[in-house]
Amino acid sequence: MAVQSIHFDKTIKSLLDEKKYQTLKDILVTMEPADIAAVFEELDEGRVPLLFRLLPKETAAETFAELEAPHQELLIRGFSDRELHELVNELYVDDAADLVDEMPANVVKRILAQADPEMRKEINEILRYPENSAGSIMTTEYVSLRPTMTVAEAISRIRKTGVDKETIYTCYVTEGRRLLGAVSVKDLLLTADDEKRVSEIMDENVIFVSTLTDQEEVAQMLSKYNFLALPVVDTDNRMVGIVTFDDAMDVLVEETTEDIEKMAGMLPSEKAYLHSTPWDLFRHRIPWLALLMVSATFTGLIITGFENALAAQVVLTAFIPMLMDTGGNSGSQASVTVIRALSLGELEFADAPRVIWKEIQTAVLCGLALSMLCFAKIMLFDRLLLGNSGITVLTAFVVCFTMALTVLLAKIVGCSLPMAAKRIGFDPAVMASPFITTIVDALSLLVYFGIATALLF
Amino acid sequence: MAVQSIHFDKTIKSLLDEKKYQTLKDILVTMEPADIAAVFEELDEGRVPLLFRLLPKETAAETFAELEAPHQELLIRGFSDRELHELVNELYVDDAADLVDEMPANVVKRILAQADPEMRKEINEILRYPENSAGSIMTTEYVSLRPTMTVAEAISRIRKTGVDKETIYTCYVTEGRRLLGAVSVKDLLLTADDEKRVSEIMDENVIFVSTLTDQEEVAQMLSKYNFLALPVVDTDNRMVGIVTFDDAMDVLVEETTEDIEKMAGMLPSEKAYLHSTPWDLFRHRIPWLALLMVSATFTGLIITGFENALAAQVVLTAFIPMLMDTGGNSGSQASVTVIRALSLGELEFADAPRVIWKEIQTAVLCGLALSMLCFAKIMLFDRLLLGNSGITVLTAFVVCFTMALTVLLAKIVGCSLPMAAKRIGFDPAVMASPFITTIVDALSLLVYFGIATALLF
Repeated sequence: MAVQSIHFDKTIKSLLDEKKYQTLKDILVTMEPADIAAVFEELDEGRVPLLFRLLPKETAAETFAELEAPHQELLIRGFSDRELHELVNELYVDDAADLVDEMPANVVKRILAQADPEMRKEINEILRYPENSAGSIMTTEYVSLRPTMTVAEAISRIRKTGVDKETIYTCYVTEGRRLLGAVSVKDLLLTADDEKRVSEIMDENVIFVSTLTDQEEVAQMLSKYNFLALPVVDTDNRMVGIVTFDDAMDVLVEETTEDIEKMAGMLPSEKAYLHSTPWDLFRHRIPWLALLMVSATFTGLIITGFENALAAQVVLTAFIPMLMDTGGNSGSQASVTVIRALSLGELEFADAPRVIWKEIQTAVLCGLALSMLCFAKIMLFDRLLLGNSGITVLTAFVVCFTMALTVLLAKIVGCSLPMAAKRIGFDPAVMASPFITTIVDALSLLVYFGIATALLF
Repeated sequence: MAVQSIHFDKTIKSLLDEKKYQTLKDILVTMEPADIAAVFEELDEGRVPLLFRLLPKETAAETFAELEAPHQELLIRGFSDRELHELVNELYVDDAADLVDEMPANVVKRILAQADPEMRKEINEILRYPENSAGSIMTTEYVSLRPTMTVAEAISRIRKTGVDKETIYTCYVTEGRRLLGAVSVKDLLLTADDEKRVSEIMDENVIFVSTLTDQEEVAQMLSKYNFLALPVVDTDNRMVGIVTFDDAMDVLVEETTEDIEKMAGMLPSEKAYLHSTPWDLFRHRIPWLALLMVSATFTGLIITGFENALAAQVVLTAFIPMLMDTGGNSGSQASVTVIRALSLGELEFADAPRVIWKEIQTAVLCGLALSMLCFAKIMLFDRLLLGNSGITVLTAFVVCFTMALTVLLAKIVGCSLPMAAKRIGFDPAVMASPFITTIVDALSLLVYFGIATALLF
């Protein structure tokens, strides 16, 4: 069971107060780095370095990698050069590269100065790749084997070189850095004949990605194939690193959060909610709010255009919110479903006709059900129960007919826009609820006033 | 690089037409089960069994596990008892349990009849646990070691028993089924001294879950700790299985999709979009659409209540959509952010005061910016450019003041409702955009007409 962090924070704080460092060491050694990091995030800043120094070297590096950037910076600023040297060279290369990517320039300078030459070279290698590419999230620490090795030789190589590798369970068979195949430790261990060659048992049909492949695609491939790691090759087809499943899981969660933020009309943020200031939140939220507010001008203009009609039939105004909301909801159901399916790779642009046809059929079903319900509601509740005699059967018909048409238009717009966005290389996620709502609002009012003008005046 | 499935489907179809079975076999043997499954899903139903029989036994089982339920059923119905026997006993236990869970009763009967007694026992074991619990997604096939074994004995045990296990890389040290510790194959291989005892190198602080732990929590723990597998213990603290990272990734994706569907006002569906009929989509979408449509009655009533005011100042109507949409967008930004943070475990109910205070500050910033922009827009565009003389400075002030208040109310409602839902054990995800929009619509109209009545009449 996960450590109950709330009680735990208190225990650790009081042990720190009482300077019981040996007890603290004994407790920390039993904890997972992710849990230690969570405790650190809750401590007063001044106490973090003290507690950090109680950690065993390896745990210290792993805990450091789990911390958020502000805490990392705080720690580094407090470190002596020797401490920094130890930490940096204990980190996995991909974590070190992330760190360099996030720290301010003067801290980066110190980090690179303390990194061993080999480490520095590999960090710089990873930093060359564009953000969100496979190259930028890969690690260069993997086990490589020669095709001519025997199983016994391979196992002995793993035992000798494995300690620094992020994973030893999938090994890559290379020749002159060219990727020939992959072999798992399971295959090696389960091969009864120790003298068999690696080339005989390796899987030659290795699935690999390029350094420039988008990280989301890499993560989806790892998830689809249930692999522990995927090899990354450069443009000259030489193997340069691997992406491991744990980084892929983080990418999946991160990219989904970004999608969700975009779908709700926000610019994606990398900071956790509790670490964001109101100013951060404001900057990420105001652009879409402002844009959508200004686009609502069209809706306003439509209403102004029919001002006289509305003045004559004020009862029509009361149904505007219901029509607009139902349109918005119908549209966002379709758009969100399509956006999610696109980002999971279940849909492609080529599926557009099937998708639109499916949405039209669904819209007809939804539209029929809703207009019947709406008709019953208007006649029984608004007219009979509330005695609003301004509502005639014809008014109810106008509202319900608008409802059905709006649902149809909303579903078509809702499913088409994300696919069109994908097609022209835009992010489909921004074509979600808020955007669709604004378009559907205008459409539903045009339909409403169009039908009303034709039938009621 | 992943196989380009579109071209590939064609190749496979034409090879099938030409009956080139040996070539097909040669191609299939190079492919990953997930890719073969994708090809199957695109084939005519009649050809699937034929192609399936060309697969090597192990690949056949893995491919089968990747297929969607309708294709699985189709294959099973076509199998002889012997074929079914071979397949079922080659499946991993968790996949077999999933299969039994999804097939109709008469198919289940055949499957269980063909399963070996041990397999049948384990399937039934897994099926005893509630849906979405760790017990229901675990596999009972893991490597267990005794604490008294030496490293050499442990490795030799893995080599002997590992072939049927879903993962061999994390082994669990048990005594009388009680979980004592975990040891990784990496630790075993990198221990130089073959005569060391497992008890000396094992990690005694194993993080485990109970059979009843929610699958989403299990997935988040695997992702947080970067583990390959998590052990599952029953209520008597005996180890009964493991959950592996690949299943956790699937759970994460599935649960997020469910959250997204709920946030867009849909009942979650287990079927992929392209496999859902319009009737399926209708059933999942109509409940919220209908409920929200009916709740818009309140908004209608508010407008009806101020009918006379609106008739006197028709210009006010034109701003209703802008106010409602901006309120809805502001509210859904807050609610979606909070829902996501809750489901990632970044927020708890105890954080509510901090969250509400943060949202109030953000709302003040957004509200100020939006009302200033709105004031400028109304005065310059609506009044000056369009020459709408019905709009006075006072009207503009009423609209902008309403805007600021609406944004404030929307953000407070948007962040509070999901936290309140979480508190009382409801799913926070249903407190998203559509629901918030309906509430905020009513609030914004009340504020609007309240201010307008006070200042304009």
